[in-house]
Amino acid sequence: MGLIVQKFGGTSVANADRIRNVARIITETYQKGNSVIAVLSAQGDTTDDLIEKAAEINPKASKREMDMLLSTGEQISCALCAMAIEALGYPVISLTGWQAGMKTNSGYGNARIKRLEAERIGAELDKKSIVIVTGFQGINKFDDVTTLGRGGSDTSAVAIAAAMHADLCQIYTDVDGVYTADPRLVKNAKKLEEITFDEMLELATLGAQVLHNRSVEMAKRYNVNLEVISSFSGQPGTKVKEVVKTMEKSHISGVAKDKNIARLALVGLADEPGIAFRIFSLLAKHSINVDIILQSIGRGNTKDISFTVQKTDMEDAKKLLEENRSSIGFQEIDVNANIAKVSIVGAGMINNPGVAANMFEALYDGGINIHMISTSEIKVSVLVDIEDTDRAVQVIHDKFYGEFNSDR
Amino acid sequence: MGLIVQKFGGTSVANADRIRNVARIITETYQKGNSVIAVLSAQGDTTDDLIEKAAEINPKASKREMDMLLSTGEQISCALCAMAIEALGYPVISLTGWQAGMKTNSGYGNARIKRLEAERIGAELDKKSIVIVTGFQGINKFDDVTTLGRGGSDTSAVAIAAAMHADLCQIYTDVDGVYTADPRLVKNAKKLEEITFDEMLELATLGAQVLHNRSVEMAKRYNVNLEVISSFSGQPGTKVKEVVKTMEKSHISGVAKDKNIARLALVGLADEPGIAFRIFSLLAKHSINVDIILQSIGRGNTKDISFTVQKTDMEDAKKLLEENRSSIGFQEIDVNANIAKVSIVGAGMINNPGVAANMFEALYDGGINIHMISTSEIKVSVLVDIEDTDRAVQVIHDKFYGEFNSDR
Repeated sequence: MGLIVQKFGGTSVANADRIRNVARIITETYQKGNSVIAVLSAQGDTTDDLIEKAAEINPKASKREMDMLLSTGEQISCALCAMAIEALGYPVISLTGWQAGMKTNSGYGNARIKRLEAERIGAELDKKSIVIVTGFQGINKFDDVTTLGRGGSDTSAVAIAAAMHADLCQIYTDVDGVYTADPRLVKNAKKLEEITFDEMLELATLGAQVLHNRSVEMAKRYNVNLEVISSFSGQPGTKVKEVVKTMEKSHISGVAKDKNIARLALVGLADEPGIAFRIFSLLAKHSINVDIILQSIGRGNTKDISFTVQKTDMEDAKKLLEENRSSIGFQEIDVNANIAKVSIVGAGMINNPGVAANMFEALYDGGINIHMISTSEIKVSVLVDIEDTDRAVQVIHDKFYGEFNSDR
Repeated sequence: MGLIVQKFGGTSVANADRIRNVARIITETYQKGNSVIAVLSAQGDTTDDLIEKAAEINPKASKREMDMLLSTGEQISCALCAMAIEALGYPVISLTGWQAGMKTNSGYGNARIKRLEAERIGAELDKKSIVIVTGFQGINKFDDVTTLGRGGSDTSAVAIAAAMHADLCQIYTDVDGVYTADPRLVKNAKKLEEITFDEMLELATLGAQVLHNRSVEMAKRYNVNLEVISSFSGQPGTKVKEVVKTMEKSHISGVAKDKNIARLALVGLADEPGIAFRIFSLLAKHSINVDIILQSIGRGNTKDISFTVQKTDMEDAKKLLEENRSSIGFQEIDVNANIAKVSIVGAGMINNPGVAANMFEALYDGGINIHMISTSEIKVSVLVDIEDTDRAVQVIHDKFYGEFNSDR
């Protein structure tokens, strides 16, 4: 018995049957004596439909009005879910972001949560109501509606769990936990019972797409007990914690891929101080997130800098750098969108230098060419040709978890 | 130059093209130096679609959650309209009911406006923004979303016009003004340049469906200059005022019909005081609105009471009365849904007793049977068989406006 926050994604509430299923999960949890706050995304394609409607009228609509439009999606799913719970005979109330007191900054389309003013949620829980809260949205200091951007509903759920000191925050999704690799892709992928925040963070950042990194970061900061679990299977999911009790036998906890990246290379930069600062502060000022950065020695008295960005930012980044060619001073800019990032993550690899070598060996055996390598304490990432991505994940996974690996 | 409130109904914002048309009307008004507040309904069938979604999940959903659901419709149309105005290059902001400060009582599904806290609208107008406000919705003292029920968006527009002391409140619709009869039905129906609040009220109540009576009542109380005008034709509409300057030549200003009614008759009631009170307080307590009431002498020591309700309330009213048969004391209850009400309205008829007689003559000449008659100072209503409705409107209109009437 305790306070449980349950988050349901767009797939989990896509139609009337699925909403009834979500209502069943919520009321079963409530029935066991728990207080329950459910955080919902918009139904399936609602957000895409609304974006399409907007594009037909004004492809360059302001972000303020886009947020006004898009925030209706969660309001609809939450009201419908509350109705489904009413039909089961339980006390329930749905709350929008502003009603729930979700205060954000003014970054329309990608707002950050500042605080939760939880009086209303608290009052409804005191009345023994099940509380359904719209994910993905809040209001800023002008009382205007904001949305939280990618992974926003996960972040809403974790923020509410943190503010309300919930005992558990369950992220219901269409997969039944965190796997050692994408189970739709890798046949012998294994579900993890537990994983640390840091490992989950690396996996999220690396495109595992189970949990968004913003929500994991927040969960780590406020020590929220997270669980990733399926809305469909009824099986236990994967727990995400500060420290995991059972150490996984393998050194790595997963293999992830990210096809949504592009690589830019600036060739022939002057070999003088301040160059990297000029490049990356320029990109940051225009909200272009840079992932891997590599600097190498170029020809003559020059150097080259390569880095990756999200594919959608590639053209903007290229244009921006070209406009500032004279102030930065480079000879050539080269872009490549035909690449993907494949990574292994695991807290165990810090003390096992052989892990990276095993990964490279697997790729070599598979005849897969590596373009860039980047490492941290708990991960190794490589860039490969995009058409090699899925095969790379498979051969790496086989290397660490395959039948011929006596460790498992 | 002044402050103009413009209301656009669901048909006027039904798709992207029509929203662009609305944006053009609004910006042309703004361009002439006016401050503009636009009040919008939900797009075409949005509300019906949402009601259908809800019915699939819970046909008996609470009104609180229904309002939460339905209020998204106007939020969508307002955000889209703001985007269309942005595309034309004008400053604009959309506001929901709660952002606009539309405070209502807690009657979910049929809330009454209590006051407009107009600081936000005022501040946006001061910034020279065009302000788009969601019609049909507000919030109650619990900060919960409410909807205003039938004709709610007209009422929102008039309430905003009253609170902001607007110079004019234009109700844009798919007809281009108030006619002497439904122009889709009666060939020689004439558009009125002006009409009084009282006449409009009778016409609205009688099912003319151009303006809802709640909005006309409010306009009369706060002396808001109203205009009913087409979003499509570009022609001047009909002005609704306290006193009209040019007296219409005819004694009546219009013929209206209402097919959405049913008649109930309680037969064999005791002829003693308090019977009518018991019946109609019971119906009022269950929010069943009664329109025409007639009491007649029955057989022996009894009396009969007949009254009309909205067709949708007929079954509820019947059930309610049957449950209370013993306390009310009647012999029989008779219902008839196969009827309609046809009415003539005109301030001029007070001093012309021949007007009602002319109406009855027209119906007699047309071979149309009259079931009930009810009169007030400025209207005469009759109940006829539903299949006679349209012909009744035509013959009455011919009588007062036809070629053979030398008055016109």
